[in-house]
Amino acid sequence: MSDQPATPRRRGAARTNALLQVTLDLATEVGYTGLTIEAVARRAGVGKHTIYRRWPSKAALLLDALSRVWTTDLDYHDTGDVRADLREQFLRSAPALASPPIGPVYRGLIAEAQSDPALRATLHERFLLTVEKRTLDRITRAQHAGELVAGVDLEFAAEVLCGTLYYRHLLSTRPVDEDAVDNLLDMFMAAYSIAR
Amino acid sequence: MSDQPATPRRRGAARTNALLQVTLDLATEVGYTGLTIEAVARRAGVGKHTIYRRWPSKAALLLDALSRVWTTDLDYHDTGDVRADLREQFLRSAPALASPPIGPVYRGLIAEAQSDPALRATLHERFLLTVEKRTLDRITRAQHAGELVAGVDLEFAAEVLCGTLYYRHLLSTRPVDEDAVDNLLDMFMAAYSIAR
Repeated sequence: MSDQPATPRRRGAARTNALLQVTLDLATEVGYTGLTIEAVARRAGVGKHTIYRRWPSKAALLLDALSRVWTTDLDYHDTGDVRADLREQFLRSAPALASPPIGPVYRGLIAEAQSDPALRATLHERFLLTVEKRTLDRITRAQHAGELVAGVDLEFAAEVLCGTLYYRHLLSTRPVDEDAVDNLLDMFMAAYSIAR
Repeated sequence: MSDQPATPRRRGAARTNALLQVTLDLATEVGYTGLTIEAVARRAGVGKHTIYRRWPSKAALLLDALSRVWTTDLDYHDTGDVRADLREQFLRSAPALASPPIGPVYRGLIAEAQSDPALRATLHERFLLTVEKRTLDRITRAQHAGELVAGVDLEFAAEVLCGTLYYRHLLSTRPVDEDAVDNLLDMFMAAYSIAR
Protein backbone atom coordinates (compact mmCIF):
# COMPACT_ATOMS: atom_id res chain seq x y z
CA MET A 1 0.00 0.00 0.00
CA SER A 2 2.78 2.46 0.85
CA ASP A 3 4.15 2.28 -2.69
CA GLN A 4 0.90 3.40 -4.24
CA PRO A 5 0.72 6.92 -5.58
CA ALA A 6 -1.08 9.47 -3.42
CA THR A 7 -4.40 9.39 -5.19
CA PRO A 8 -7.01 12.04 -4.37
CA ARG A 9 -8.90 9.43 -2.36
CA ARG A 10 -5.84 8.57 -0.27
CA ARG A 11 -5.01 12.23 0.29
CA GLY A 12 -8.62 12.73 1.39
CA ALA A 13 -8.38 9.86 3.89
CA ALA A 14 -5.13 11.24 5.29
CA ARG A 15 -6.69 14.69 5.72
CA THR A 16 -9.70 13.14 7.47
CA ASN A 17 -7.43 11.17 9.80
CA ALA A 18 -5.43 14.27 10.66
CA LEU A 19 -8.59 16.24 11.35
CA LEU A 20 -10.01 13.53 13.61
CA GLN A 21 -6.71 13.37 15.50
CA VAL A 22 -6.78 17.15 16.03
CA THR A 23 -10.38 16.82 17.25
CA LEU A 24 -9.42 14.17 19.77
CA ASP A 25 -6.33 16.04 20.99
CA LEU A 26 -8.26 19.24 21.46
CA ALA A 27 -11.18 17.47 23.17
CA THR A 28 -8.70 15.87 25.57
CA GLU A 29 -7.18 19.29 26.33
CA VAL A 30 -10.31 21.42 26.74
CA GLY A 31 -13.01 18.83 27.51
CA TYR A 32 -16.16 18.04 25.58
CA THR A 33 -18.03 21.14 26.70
CA GLY A 34 -15.19 23.51 25.85
CA LEU A 35 -14.58 22.09 22.38
CA THR A 36 -15.78 24.07 19.36
CA ILE A 37 -15.69 23.26 15.66
CA GLU A 38 -14.11 26.68 15.14
CA ALA A 39 -11.16 25.74 17.37
CA VAL A 40 -10.74 22.40 15.58
CA ALA A 41 -10.76 24.18 12.21
CA ARG A 42 -8.19 26.73 13.42
CA ARG A 43 -5.77 24.11 14.72
CA ALA A 44 -6.23 21.85 11.69
CA GLY A 45 -5.71 24.82 9.36
CA VAL A 46 -8.97 24.35 7.48
CA GLY A 47 -12.06 26.49 7.11
CA LYS A 48 -14.88 25.66 9.52
CA HIS A 49 -17.24 25.16 6.58
CA THR A 50 -14.99 22.33 5.40
CA ILE A 51 -15.83 20.58 8.66
CA TYR A 52 -19.52 21.52 8.71
CA ARG A 53 -19.95 20.18 5.16
CA ARG A 54 -19.20 16.69 6.43
CA TRP A 55 -20.05 16.78 10.15
CA PRO A 56 -23.21 18.71 11.00
CA SER A 57 -22.37 18.97 14.71
CA LYS A 58 -19.63 18.69 17.28
CA ALA A 59 -21.14 15.38 18.41
CA ALA A 60 -21.01 13.92 14.89
CA LEU A 61 -17.36 14.92 14.55
CA LEU A 62 -16.49 13.40 17.93
CA LEU A 63 -18.32 10.16 17.14
CA ASP A 64 -16.02 9.66 14.14
CA ALA A 65 -12.96 10.71 16.13
CA LEU A 66 -13.87 8.17 18.80
CA SER A 67 -14.47 5.37 16.28
CA ARG A 68 -10.93 5.83 15.01
CA VAL A 69 -9.33 5.05 18.39
CA TRP A 70 -11.92 2.53 19.58
CA THR A 71 -9.49 -0.29 19.32
CA THR A 72 -9.98 -3.99 18.73
CA ASP A 73 -7.98 -4.40 21.97
CA LEU A 74 -11.42 -4.44 23.55
CA ASP A 75 -12.11 -7.86 22.00
CA TYR A 76 -12.53 -10.92 24.19
CA HIS A 77 -9.97 -13.70 24.33
CA ASP A 78 -11.15 -17.29 24.14
CA THR A 79 -9.01 -19.51 26.37
CA GLY A 80 -11.88 -21.93 27.03
CA ASP A 81 -12.47 -20.45 30.51
CA VAL A 82 -15.35 -17.99 30.14
CA ARG A 83 -15.05 -16.48 33.60
CA ALA A 84 -11.33 -15.80 33.18
CA ASP A 85 -11.85 -14.32 29.70
CA LEU A 86 -14.64 -11.98 30.83
CA ARG A 87 -12.57 -10.93 33.83
CA GLU A 88 -9.51 -10.21 31.71
CA GLN A 89 -11.45 -8.17 29.17
CA PHE A 90 -13.43 -6.15 31.76
CA LEU A 91 -10.27 -5.24 33.69
CA ARG A 92 -8.42 -4.37 30.47
CA SER A 93 -11.20 -2.24 28.99
CA ALA A 94 -12.13 -0.37 32.19
CA PRO A 95 -9.03 1.88 32.21
CA ALA A 96 -9.18 2.27 28.41
CA LEU A 97 -12.75 3.55 28.65
CA ALA A 98 -11.92 5.82 31.60
CA SER A 99 -8.69 7.47 30.34
CA PRO A 100 -7.69 9.59 27.33
CA PRO A 101 -7.99 9.38 24.42
CA ILE A 102 -11.32 7.51 24.73
CA GLY A 103 -12.52 8.31 28.28
CA PRO A 104 -13.35 12.02 28.45
CA VAL A 105 -14.70 12.23 24.88
CA TYR A 106 -16.89 9.17 25.40
CA ARG A 107 -18.21 10.56 28.68
CA GLY A 108 -18.91 13.91 26.99
CA LEU A 109 -20.89 12.25 24.21
CA ILE A 110 -22.87 10.21 26.71
CA ALA A 111 -23.72 13.44 28.55
CA GLU A 112 -24.75 15.19 25.32
CA ALA A 113 -26.88 12.16 24.38
CA GLN A 114 -29.06 12.71 27.46
CA SER A 115 -30.72 15.68 25.75
CA ASP A 116 -30.44 14.30 22.20
CA PRO A 117 -32.31 11.03 21.52
CA ALA A 118 -30.89 10.72 17.99
CA LEU A 119 -27.33 10.94 19.31
CA ARG A 120 -28.27 8.42 22.02
CA ALA A 121 -29.44 5.98 19.35
CA THR A 122 -26.23 6.46 17.33
CA LEU A 123 -24.01 6.10 20.39
CA HIS A 124 -25.84 2.95 21.40
CA GLU A 125 -25.61 1.44 17.93
CA ARG A 126 -21.96 2.30 17.29
CA PHE A 127 -20.42 1.65 20.71
CA LEU A 128 -22.54 0.15 23.48
CA LEU A 129 -24.33 -2.39 21.31
CA THR A 130 -20.98 -3.44 19.85
CA VAL A 131 -19.68 -4.17 23.34
CA GLU A 132 -22.85 -6.07 24.22
CA LYS A 133 -22.70 -8.14 21.02
CA ARG A 134 -19.07 -9.15 21.57
CA THR A 135 -19.94 -10.13 25.12
CA LEU A 136 -22.91 -12.15 23.87
CA ASP A 137 -20.68 -13.91 21.32
CA ARG A 138 -18.21 -14.93 24.01
CA ILE A 139 -20.80 -16.25 26.47
CA THR A 140 -22.74 -18.00 23.70
CA ARG A 141 -19.54 -19.84 22.76
CA ALA A 142 -19.23 -20.86 26.43
CA GLN A 143 -22.81 -22.11 26.35
CA HIS A 144 -22.07 -24.21 23.25
CA ALA A 145 -18.91 -25.52 24.94
CA GLY A 146 -20.97 -26.72 27.89
CA GLU A 147 -19.58 -24.22 30.41
CA LEU A 148 -22.93 -22.42 30.80
CA VAL A 149 -26.41 -23.92 31.06
CA ALA A 150 -28.11 -24.73 27.76
CA GLY A 151 -31.48 -23.46 26.63
CA VAL A 152 -31.17 -20.02 28.21
CA ASP A 153 -31.25 -16.83 26.12
CA LEU A 154 -28.08 -14.99 27.13
CA GLU A 155 -28.76 -11.70 25.32
CA PHE A 156 -30.04 -9.99 28.43
CA ALA A 157 -27.15 -11.42 30.47
CA ALA A 158 -24.73 -9.61 28.13
CA GLU A 159 -26.64 -6.38 28.78
CA VAL A 160 -26.46 -6.95 32.55
CA LEU A 161 -22.69 -7.52 32.42
CA CYS A 162 -22.01 -4.37 30.39
CA GLY A 163 -24.72 -2.26 31.99
CA THR A 164 -23.58 -2.83 35.55
CA LEU A 165 -20.03 -1.74 34.77
CA TYR A 166 -21.17 1.31 32.78
CA TYR A 167 -23.50 2.30 35.62
CA ARG A 168 -20.65 2.12 38.13
CA HIS A 169 -18.34 4.09 35.84
CA LEU A 170 -20.83 6.82 34.92
CA LEU A 171 -23.04 7.22 37.97
CA SER A 172 -21.13 6.28 41.08
CA THR A 173 -17.95 7.28 42.84
CA ARG A 174 -16.81 3.66 42.97
CA PRO A 175 -14.15 2.31 40.61
CA VAL A 176 -14.55 -0.54 38.13
CA ASP A 177 -11.90 -2.62 39.91
CA GLU A 178 -11.14 -6.29 40.61
CA ASP A 179 -13.68 -6.46 43.43
CA ALA A 180 -16.48 -5.11 41.25
CA VAL A 181 -15.65 -7.42 38.36
CA ASP A 182 -15.33 -10.46 40.64
CA ASN A 183 -18.67 -9.69 42.33
CA LEU A 184 -20.36 -9.31 38.96
CA LEU A 185 -18.89 -12.57 37.68
CA ASP A 186 -19.88 -14.36 40.90
CA MET A 187 -23.48 -13.41 40.18
CA PHE A 188 -23.22 -14.29 36.49
CA MET A 189 -21.71 -17.71 37.18
CA ALA A 190 -24.17 -18.41 40.02
CA ALA A 191 -26.98 -17.79 37.52
CA TYR A 192 -25.61 -19.60 34.45
CA SER A 193 -22.65 -21.88 35.21
CA ILE A 194 -23.39 -25.61 34.80
CA ALA A 195 -21.26 -26.10 37.96
CA ARG A 196 -23.44 -23.84 40.14
CA MET B 1 -49.87 22.73 62.04
CA SER B 2 -52.22 24.82 59.91
CA ASP B 3 -53.46 26.69 62.96
CA GLN B 4 -50.00 27.88 63.87
CA PRO B 5 -49.14 31.47 63.14
CA ALA B 6 -47.02 32.14 60.07
CA THR B 7 -43.67 32.44 61.82
CA PRO B 8 -40.67 33.72 59.87
CA ARG B 9 -39.37 30.15 59.65
CA ARG B 10 -42.64 28.89 58.15
CA ARG B 11 -42.81 31.79 55.72
CA GLY B 12 -39.21 30.97 54.71
CA ALA B 13 -40.06 27.33 54.10
CA ALA B 14 -43.10 28.32 52.00
CA ARG B 15 -40.96 30.67 49.90
CA THR B 16 -38.35 27.91 49.38
CA ASN B 17 -41.04 25.46 48.31
CA ALA B 18 -42.50 27.95 45.86
CA LEU B 19 -39.07 28.67 44.40
CA LEU B 20 -38.27 24.97 43.99
CA GLN B 21 -41.63 24.43 42.28
CA VAL B 22 -40.93 27.30 39.86
CA THR B 23 -37.50 25.75 39.17
CA LEU B 24 -39.02 22.38 38.37
CA ASP B 25 -41.79 23.84 36.20
CA LEU B 26 -39.35 25.92 34.22
CA ALA B 27 -36.87 23.04 33.83
CA THR B 28 -39.70 20.88 32.50
CA GLU B 29 -40.63 23.60 29.99
CA VAL B 30 -37.21 24.60 28.68
CA GLY B 31 -35.04 21.58 29.54
CA TYR B 32 -31.99 21.37 31.76
CA THR B 33 -29.66 23.03 29.28
CA GLY B 34 -31.98 25.95 28.61
CA LEU B 35 -32.66 26.69 32.27
CA THR B 36 -31.00 29.72 33.87
CA ILE B 37 -31.05 31.00 37.43
CA GLU B 38 -31.98 34.42 36.00
CA ALA B 39 -35.15 32.97 34.46
CA VAL B 40 -36.07 31.19 37.69
CA ALA B 41 -35.58 34.45 39.63
CA ARG B 42 -37.71 36.39 37.14
CA ARG B 43 -40.61 33.95 37.26
CA ALA B 44 -40.42 33.58 41.05
CA GLY B 45 -40.28 37.37 41.45
CA VAL B 46 -37.07 37.40 43.48
CA GLY B 47 -33.64 38.82 42.84
CA LYS B 48 -31.14 36.37 41.37
CA HIS B 49 -28.76 37.06 44.27
CA THR B 50 -31.42 35.72 46.63
CA ILE B 51 -31.06 32.40 44.79
CA TYR B 52 -27.27 32.50 44.46
CA ARG B 53 -26.93 33.17 48.21
CA ARG B 54 -28.34 29.73 48.91
CA TRP B 55 -27.65 27.70 45.74
CA PRO B 56 -24.26 28.32 44.17
CA SER B 57 -25.21 26.75 40.84
CA LYS B 58 -28.07 25.64 38.66
CA ALA B 59 -27.22 22.02 39.51
CA ALA B 60 -27.44 22.67 43.27
CA LEU B 61 -30.84 24.33 42.83
CA LEU B 62 -32.12 21.45 40.71
CA LEU B 63 -30.86 18.84 43.17
CA ASP B 64 -33.06 20.39 45.87
CA ALA B 65 -35.98 20.78 43.47
CA LEU B 66 -35.67 17.09 42.57
CA SER B 67 -35.45 15.98 46.21
CA ARG B 68 -38.78 17.66 46.86
CA VAL B 69 -40.65 15.53 44.31
CA TRP B 70 -38.61 12.34 44.76
CA THR B 71 -41.51 10.54 46.32
CA THR B 72 -41.65 7.73 48.81
CA ASP B 73 -43.85 6.00 46.22
CA LEU B 74 -40.58 4.52 45.04
CA ASP B 75 -40.39 2.34 48.17
CA TYR B 76 -40.64 -1.43 47.93
CA HIS B 77 -43.64 -3.36 49.15
CA ASP B 78 -43.12 -6.48 51.24
CA THR B 79 -45.72 -9.10 50.40
CA GLY B 80 -43.37 -11.97 51.25
CA ASP B 81 -42.70 -12.67 47.54
CA VAL B 82 -39.42 -10.93 46.72
CA ARG B 83 -39.62 -11.42 42.96
CA ALA B 84 -43.13 -9.98 42.79
CA ASP B 85 -42.18 -7.02 44.99
CA LEU B 86 -39.08 -6.16 42.96
CA ARG B 87 -41.09 -6.49 39.74
CA GLU B 88 -43.85 -4.24 41.02
CA GLN B 89 -41.44 -1.56 42.19
CA PHE B 90 -39.29 -1.58 39.03
CA LEU B 91 -42.34 -1.26 36.77
CA ARG B 92 -43.83 1.48 38.95
CA SER B 93 -40.64 3.54 39.23
CA ALA B 94 -39.54 3.25 35.58
CA PRO B 95 -42.18 5.68 34.22
CA ALA B 96 -41.79 7.97 37.26
CA LEU B 97 -38.05 8.27 36.57
CA ALA B 98 -38.62 8.76 32.83
CA SER B 99 -41.42 11.38 32.85
CA PRO B 100 -41.90 14.88 34.25
CA PRO B 101 -41.49 16.19 36.84
CA ILE B 102 -38.57 13.87 37.75
CA GLY B 103 -37.42 12.46 34.38
CA PRO B 104 -35.97 15.32 32.33
CA VAL B 105 -34.44 17.12 35.32
CA TYR B 106 -32.84 13.92 36.60
CA ARG B 107 -31.46 13.13 33.14
CA GLY B 108 -30.09 16.67 32.86
CA LEU B 109 -28.32 16.41 36.21
CA ILE B 110 -26.84 13.04 35.24
CA ALA B 111 -25.53 14.61 32.02
CA GLU B 112 -24.05 17.57 33.91
CA ALA B 113 -22.44 15.17 36.40
CA GLN B 114 -20.36 13.63 33.60
CA SER B 115 -18.12 16.71 33.60
CA ASP B 116 -18.47 17.48 37.32
CA PRO B 117 -17.17 14.77 39.71
CA ALA B 118 -18.45 16.62 42.81
CA LEU B 119 -21.97 16.73 41.38
CA ARG B 120 -21.63 13.05 40.45
CA ALA B 121 -20.78 12.21 44.06
CA THR B 122 -23.75 14.23 45.36
CA LEU B 123 -26.14 12.73 42.83
CA HIS B 124 -24.95 9.23 43.70
CA GLU B 125 -25.28 9.84 47.44
CA ARG B 126 -28.68 11.55 47.34
CA PHE B 127 -30.47 9.49 44.70
CA LEU B 128 -28.80 6.40 43.24
CA LEU B 129 -27.38 5.10 46.50
CA THR B 130 -30.77 5.60 48.13
CA VAL B 131 -32.36 3.40 45.48
CA GLU B 132 -29.63 0.77 45.89
CA LYS B 133 -29.98 0.74 49.69
CA ARG B 134 -33.75 0.29 49.56
CA THR B 135 -33.26 -2.57 47.11
CA LEU B 136 -30.63 -4.12 49.37
CA ASP B 137 -33.01 -3.85 52.35
CA ARG B 138 -35.75 -5.67 50.47
CA ILE B 139 -33.56 -8.53 49.20
CA THR B 140 -31.83 -8.89 52.58
CA ARG B 141 -35.25 -9.36 54.18
CA ALA B 142 -35.92 -12.08 51.58
CA GLN B 143 -32.63 -13.72 52.49
CA HIS B 144 -33.57 -13.70 56.19
CA ALA B 145 -36.99 -15.11 55.29
CA GLY B 146 -35.34 -18.04 53.51
CA GLU B 147 -36.38 -17.01 49.98
CA LEU B 148 -32.79 -16.32 48.87
CA VAL B 149 -29.65 -18.33 49.61
CA ALA B 150 -27.96 -17.55 52.92
CA GLY B 151 -24.36 -16.50 53.42
CA VAL B 152 -24.14 -14.42 50.25
CA ASP B 153 -23.39 -10.68 50.36
CA LEU B 154 -26.21 -9.11 48.36
CA GLU B 155 -24.87 -5.56 48.22
CA PHE B 156 -23.47 -5.98 44.73
CA ALA B 157 -26.67 -7.72 43.60
CA ALA B 158 -28.59 -4.57 44.52
CA GLU B 159 -26.19 -2.55 42.37
CA VAL B 160 -26.66 -4.96 39.45
CA LEU B 161 -30.45 -4.70 39.67
CA CYS B 162 -30.47 -0.89 39.71
CA GLY B 163 -27.49 -0.46 37.39
CA THR B 164 -28.90 -2.59 34.59
CA LEU B 165 -32.16 -0.64 34.51
CA TYR B 166 -30.39 2.74 34.66
CA TYR B 167 -28.08 1.67 31.84
CA ARG B 168 -31.03 0.72 29.66
CA HIS B 169 -32.85 3.97 30.45
CA LEU B 170 -29.87 6.27 29.94
CA LEU B 171 -27.77 4.61 27.24
CA SER B 172 -29.98 2.54 25.00
CA THR B 173 -33.02 3.00 22.82
CA ARG B 174 -34.77 0.13 24.56
CA PRO B 175 -37.51 0.72 27.13
CA VAL B 176 -37.51 -0.43 30.74
CA ASP B 177 -40.57 -2.61 30.19
CA GLU B 178 -42.02 -5.90 31.47
CA ASP B 179 -39.67 -7.98 29.30
CA ALA B 180 -36.57 -6.21 30.60
CA VAL B 181 -37.66 -6.48 34.22
CA ASP B 182 -38.63 -10.14 33.84
CA ASN B 183 -35.30 -10.99 32.19
CA LEU B 184 -33.40 -9.20 34.93
CA LEU B 185 -35.35 -10.98 37.65
CA ASP B 186 -34.86 -14.34 35.90
CA MET B 187 -31.11 -13.81 36.21
CA PHE B 188 -31.34 -12.56 39.79
CA MET B 189 -33.47 -15.50 40.91
CA ALA B 190 -31.30 -18.00 38.99
CA ALA B 191 -28.32 -16.69 40.94
CA TYR B 192 -29.83 -16.35 44.41
CA SER B 193 -33.18 -18.13 44.82
CA ILE B 194 -33.11 -21.16 47.15
CA ALA B 195 -35.44 -22.82 44.63
CA ARG B 196 -33.03 -22.44 41.70
